[in-house]
Amino acid sequence: MDISRLARDIRKGDRKALAKGITLAENETAKASSLLRTLEPPGRAFVVGVTGPPGTGKSTLVDRLVGLYRRRGLRVGVIAVDPTSPITGGALLGDRVRMERHANDRGVFIRSMASRGWSGGLSRATSQVIQLMDAAGFDVVLLETVGIGQSDIEVVGVSHAVLVVLMPGLGDDVQVSKAGLMEIGDVYVVNKADVEGADALVVSLLGLVRSMRSRSPPVVKVSALTGEGLENLESAIEAIRARFEEGDLEVRLRSASGMIAQTARAVLAERLAHTSRERVNELALMVVKGEITVDAAAGLLLK
Amino acid sequence: MDISRLARDIRKGDRKALAKGITLAENETAKASSLLRTLEPPGRAFVVGVTGPPGTGKSTLVDRLVGLYRRRGLRVGVIAVDPTSPITGGALLGDRVRMERHANDRGVFIRSMASRGWSGGLSRATSQVIQLMDAAGFDVVLLETVGIGQSDIEVVGVSHAVLVVLMPGLGDDVQVSKAGLMEIGDVYVVNKADVEGADALVVSLLGLVRSMRSRSPPVVKVSALTGEGLENLESAIEAIRARFEEGDLEVRLRSASGMIAQTARAVLAERLAHTSRERVNELALMVVKGEITVDAAAGLLLK
Repeated sequence: MDISRLARDIRKGDRKALAKGITLAENETAKASSLLRTLEPPGRAFVVGVTGPPGTGKSTLVDRLVGLYRRRGLRVGVIAVDPTSPITGGALLGDRVRMERHANDRGVFIRSMASRGWSGGLSRATSQVIQLMDAAGFDVVLLETVGIGQSDIEVVGVSHAVLVVLMPGLGDDVQVSKAGLMEIGDVYVVNKADVEGADALVVSLLGLVRSMRSRSPPVVKVSALTGEGLENLESAIEAIRARFEEGDLEVRLRSASGMIAQTARAVLAERLAHTSRERVNELALMVVKGEITVDAAAGLLLK
Repeated sequence: MDISRLARDIRKGDRKALAKGITLAENETAKASSLLRTLEPPGRAFVVGVTGPPGTGKSTLVDRLVGLYRRRGLRVGVIAVDPTSPITGGALLGDRVRMERHANDRGVFIRSMASRGWSGGLSRATSQVIQLMDAAGFDVVLLETVGIGQSDIEVVGVSHAVLVVLMPGLGDDVQVSKAGLMEIGDVYVVNKADVEGADALVVSLLGLVRSMRSRSPPVVKVSALTGEGLENLESAIEAIRARFEEGDLEVRLRSASGMIAQTARAVLAERLAHTSRERVNELALMVVKGEITVDAAAGLLLK
C-alpha cells in the first residue's frame, strides 16, 4: 500500500481513501500510525463524545446534532463505537438506517466501530479514526457510544466535550452517580422531556453535580424526537466549541491527553500480548506448583 | 487491618472473612495481593467460565451446575461478573434472587462483581477472588458473565474450562463465529433445547468448530429450565475436571497463564494512570501544537 498516496487522497477529502484509512486503524494500527505521521492531522476537528445508559435516545440526539452542524455548513464525522461483540452490535447501533439517510450528503461521514480484540485496541483505533477524520477536513466529530458501561466512559475520554444523556425513569440517581457519569459530563442532557419525571431529574442532577464538582456543568432538557429544547443544548455545546476555536488549552489538552493515555495503554497491552508467551507459561508453572501467587508472577513478568 | 488474622479466618472457610477479602480485591488490589501472599492459595479449585450472548439462560444453567456439584458434596463459589455500569448491572444479574435461594447452604458462596474503573481492574479483581475462594476451600468456582461482549471473553480467560452457551434464533452462525466465541469454548452448550432450530444449531456449531479447530470440543443440547440433557453437559465438564484433578498441565496452566496476563495488564494500566499525568500533559501540548502525532506521543510516554 502506498501510504503517501493514501495520505494525499485523505487530505483531499476522498471518502474511499478515508474509509481505507479507517480500516487500517481497525486492523493494522501500526500502519495507521505511519499514515498519521504522514498526514500530520491539523487538530481542527472538534470532538463531541455522547454517552449515557442504553435507551436514552443518544442516536436520535446525534442525528439532531448532525443536522444542526450541517445547517451551519460544517462537515461532520460520526463514529458509533460499540465495544461489544458483533452479536449485539448490529442491533444496537442501527447505523445502516442512518447511513442511508445521509447517503447523499458528502458533508457527513458515518462509521461504526466494534472490536474483536481487547477493548484497549478499540480505544486506540478510535483515536486514530478521529485523527483521520480531522485530516480529511471534518470540522466536528461526534463520538457516540452504545451506552452499556464502563468502556463507554473510557471511549469518550478523547473528546473535547462530553454530553451525558439521561432520561426520566432510569432508576434512582444514586445509580447514575455510582456509574461514574457524574464526573465526566460537560453537558448533561435530560432527553425525552415529555416523559413524566423529566423536571424532577433535572433538579436532582443539578443538585448532584453541584455537590460533586467545583464548576457545575449545564443541565439541559430536550426532546431529541420533537426538537424541543435543542437550542439550549446547542448553545451549551457551542460555548465549549468557542473555547476550542480560541485555542483554549484546557479544552484542547483534554482530548489530546485522553488519546495519548489510551494509545499508550493499548500499546502496552499489545507488547505484553506479543513478547511474553513463553515467560508467562514459565511463571504459570510456578503458580501451578504453588511456588508463587498470581500477583507475584505478574510482578515478575513486568520486571 | 490484620492481614494474617484475616487469612487465618478465610482458610477456616469463614464467610464474613471471605467477603471482607473480596471487598479488598474489589477496592484495594494491593492489600488483596498481600493477603494472597499470606494465604498461599492451594490451587485446588476448578474454575468453570460460563459465557455467551445475553438471554441464553446462563444464570439458570449456573444454578443447575451449582445443584449438580452440591449433590456430589462439593463446595461451590459463584462469581457473576458484570463489566458494565451499575445502571444495567443489577437488572441483568438478578443475583439477589439466587442468593436468597442458596442463603441457607453454607457450601455455596455467590458474589457479583461490577467495576467502576477500567475493565482491566475487574479482570485483576476476578483473579484475586478466584484465589480467595480457592484458599477458603471451595472445590469449584463458576465464573458467569452477563454476555455482552468482548470483555466477557477476556473475563473467562482465567478458567480451566469454558462453557459457551448459545440458543436457537440468535441470528446466523457467522455472527457467532465473528464474536470470537468459536475460539474459546471447551464445551458448547445449546440451551433451550425445546426451541425450534436447536438441532440445526447443534449441527452448524459442530461444522464450525470442526472447520476452525484441530480438536473439536463437544456440543451438547440442554434445557437448563427442565433439566433435559444436563447429564451430557455434566460428563463433558467432568472429563475436563478429571484432567484437572490428575494434574494435567495443559488444563492447569491455562487458568494460571490467563490470570497472570490479565493481572500484568491491569498493573501496567494502573502504573500508567498513576505516574505520568504531568508527562502526558507535556506531550499533549506538543500534540496540540501539531509537533507530533498522538501515536508518537504515546511512544514517547512509554520510553
